[in-house]
Amino acid sequence: MTAASPVPAGDSSTVGDTGEAALLERIRARIPPAPPWLVVGIGDDAAVLERERNRLDVLTTDVLVEGVHFDRRYVPPDAIGHKALAVNLSDLAAMGAAPRGAMLSLVLPPSLPVADLDALLDGLLALALRHRVALVGGNLARSPGPLVVDVMAFGTVRRRYVLTRAGARPGDELWLSGAIGAAAAGLEICAAGQADAGEALGECAARFLRPDPRVRLGVIVGRTRAARASIDLSDGLADAVRQMTAASGTGAVLDREALPLAPGARAWFEGHGVEPLAAAITGGEDYELLFAVPARRHRALLAAARLSGVPVARVGRVTADRALVLRREGRDEDLPAGFAHFR
Amino acid sequence: MTAASPVPAGDSSTVGDTGEAALLERIRARIPPAPPWLVVGIGDDAAVLERERNRLDVLTTDVLVEGVHFDRRYVPPDAIGHKALAVNLSDLAAMGAAPRGAMLSLVLPPSLPVADLDALLDGLLALALRHRVALVGGNLARSPGPLVVDVMAFGTVRRRYVLTRAGARPGDELWLSGAIGAAAAGLEICAAGQADAGEALGECAARFLRPDPRVRLGVIVGRTRAARASIDLSDGLADAVRQMTAASGTGAVLDREALPLAPGARAWFEGHGVEPLAAAITGGEDYELLFAVPARRHRALLAAARLSGVPVARVGRVTADRALVLRREGRDEDLPAGFAHFR
Repeated sequence: MTAASPVPAGDSSTVGDTGEAALLERIRARIPPAPPWLVVGIGDDAAVLERERNRLDVLTTDVLVEGVHFDRRYVPPDAIGHKALAVNLSDLAAMGAAPRGAMLSLVLPPSLPVADLDALLDGLLALALRHRVALVGGNLARSPGPLVVDVMAFGTVRRRYVLTRAGARPGDELWLSGAIGAAAAGLEICAAGQADAGEALGECAARFLRPDPRVRLGVIVGRTRAARASIDLSDGLADAVRQMTAASGTGAVLDREALPLAPGARAWFEGHGVEPLAAAITGGEDYELLFAVPARRHRALLAAARLSGVPVARVGRVTADRALVLRREGRDEDLPAGFAHFR
Repeated sequence: MTAASPVPAGDSSTVGDTGEAALLERIRARIPPAPPWLVVGIGDDAAVLERERNRLDVLTTDVLVEGVHFDRRYVPPDAIGHKALAVNLSDLAAMGAAPRGAMLSLVLPPSLPVADLDALLDGLLALALRHRVALVGGNLARSPGPLVVDVMAFGTVRRRYVLTRAGARPGDELWLSGAIGAAAAGLEICAAGQADAGEALGECAARFLRPDPRVRLGVIVGRTRAARASIDLSDGLADAVRQMTAASGTGAVLDREALPLAPGARAWFEGHGVEPLAAAITGGEDYELLFAVPARRHRALLAAARLSGVPVARVGRVTADRALVLRREGRDEDLPAGFAHFR
């Protein structure tokens, strides 16, 4: 975070009061010095970049829309900025790519306080700094409706280290980073104003508001070739398993007892009469990584997890039979469907 | 345009009826086969690209927002798709970069007819095909308000051929492609339902709805080093001159009599009691290119114009004095300000 262009306490000016040139100047003032590979940065018609040698480019884009992905009543602006970049870094991590830069497209309601815009940028730039991601360009537009924060992130990977969804083979083990359910519970905890009601609930709220993309884990798993396939959990574990197995032409069995449920999520969902694991399996936004790991490579995966400081758990295996099964003490159920965006 | 997934006549299904997976399938079915350099295309967490050798990457992003940049009552969906890509290709052209690919981020109101989504894609993909631009990825999200079409485009350029806004020097001539005022008039002509009222008005409407980005001209001017600086006219000529001279630390004199006004724009604005040149100078969205050309290089610029089939006109010169002047028969006025997005 930078201290440039601080908003004086009590400054109530809005985006609509400020004018595009002044907004751009405000944004520019917050951006750290450009890395040496950025030949032309913010302020021209396009950004011009030098390349790293012997790498492929990896590009992704993901958007946060007010009223769909966040509610400004309980998601503070710095969390919106953080998350808008985090969801994209998570996609790069799932490909084994090291992030390099991002572009930010902001569609701003004129009523947005300039202080909120500053905080949004600070949240995004703090995460960018942590992962050495340069903001190389972007765009400002006016919104007649919701705040829209669209990020495009790019990174690089060596050809032989690319991870995709499509490489899983029958017999591979399924390994999952972190825990599930925290974000789904965190959304409800924030909406209910309970983020301060104890450590476990607070952790869920934090995971929902400021997810920690598994950048280092994805890169190390790629480089050590510990996995054959990888995907991130943007739309929940059930959806991730479905996407990976569909792309790989396989099925999967998940071991219900092995699924790592976030403690706060268990407490929250049990306290609200919801079956915690069912909620966690279908709940989105955990931004963990799911890997298909050949059995003989599981030590390499554990080493990658140790190096990156992220716990991993073996949660199931890839099958030739294309069914998707949730197994509990030998009793099989169908894996539930994931979150649907348009229905 | 492809004939994949045609909507049966009378199909009135909406995006909200359809579900994300079916929408993605629809989009995928319309996209032409991937170019050989696309290692991983649409359908994974991110796109993976091979590079051309000895080139720099050029990235840009620009968004179209319903109610701000277009009105669905008189801008057909294929024009929205065309324009969303065109404005980005125009930015790449201004840098001298050859376009290569794009990513498309769509924020869709559930009430949007699926037939409109198809038409939007067809408009975008037809322009992409014409310029050999591959759609390598993107994102779908639901909108609680306006339709938002956000495009990120990328291309490549050799280091010594990069054009920026910042290279203009006193004594350089200012050259402009095409004509000005067509898009500003075209917006009013479309809003008034007059696009069919004669050829001149129709040309303005066409230029507003489906601007033709000066891709080939920008690339050739870069490669032949015919210009020292370049910018596109997204926010009008006055704004472009202001941006280029500010970045270059110069001023400029524009010769009012030399400005090429689109014939339909003259007819339209005169018929509505508006001074045509004033409207054309400040009107946005012409997506022409403005170049600063050393006097001894003006033949190279004319050759580039001939090769690309786009007319160019000498409209002024760059000055050491930092004033921005509009000169008419020896009488000087201040150059008016451009279009303001947030005021």
